Amino acid sequence: MIATTPQPPYYAVIFLSTMSTKQKNYAEMSERMIEFASKEEGFLGIESARDENGFGITISYWESEAAIQRWKDNAFHFVAQEKGKSTWYTDYMIRICEVERAYGTDRK
Amino acid sequence: MIATTPQPPYYAVIFLSTMSTKQKNYAEMSERMIEFASKEEGFLGIESARDENGFGITISYWESEAAIQRWKDNAFHFVAQEKGKSTWYTDYMIRICEVERAYGTDRK
Repeated sequence: MIATTPQPPYYAVIFLSTMSTKQKNYAEMSERMIEFASKEEGFLGIESARDENGFGITISYWESEAAIQRWKDNAFHFVAQEKGKSTWYTDYMIRICEVERAYGTDRK
Repeated sequence: MIATTPQPPYYAVIFLSTMSTKQKNYAEMSERMIEFASKEEGFLGIESARDENGFGITISYWESEAAIQRWKDNAFHFVAQEKGKSTWYTDYMIRICEVERAYGTDRK
């Protein structure tokens, strides 16, 4: 689902990943991570899509770089408690961006 | 697939879309659009995932904002010739970003 975000500028964390195998509890873990991020101060929204080959893109939006840093610190502890990220993904990439402009349909 | 990109800074165009119905020639159109973008000067790479509900995220990477503008102008003509974008998507959103940092696994 397309996230409802404020006027730019704001920040985006693009998380790209390839799943190592079909993880039966991946969906649950993913849900919990989204729930976790959404409680963080400065969180603006999240978008996620994973194709049938296991390649996934998740983009979270944030008010500031400081909010990203707080979330990263907290998420690290959360993931470490739950399960090592290394067992979920064969490859991943994170890109931190500043969103400068945004436009599209708006039917909300 | 995770795109191989140079060191930041560079630019990203995040394209989010919800498909109106199962378009049988969508995959072909999508392939042609990727082929089209990859010939453009300043193109760095592209990543795309669409889930089973028809929600899709495509991110293209560019050397400069000028390259994005050129591609946008050309893509507009291409899409107009082929088929109106409005018949493909019920909703879409485009976000133009500057990528500031990137890190992850690198097995290439």
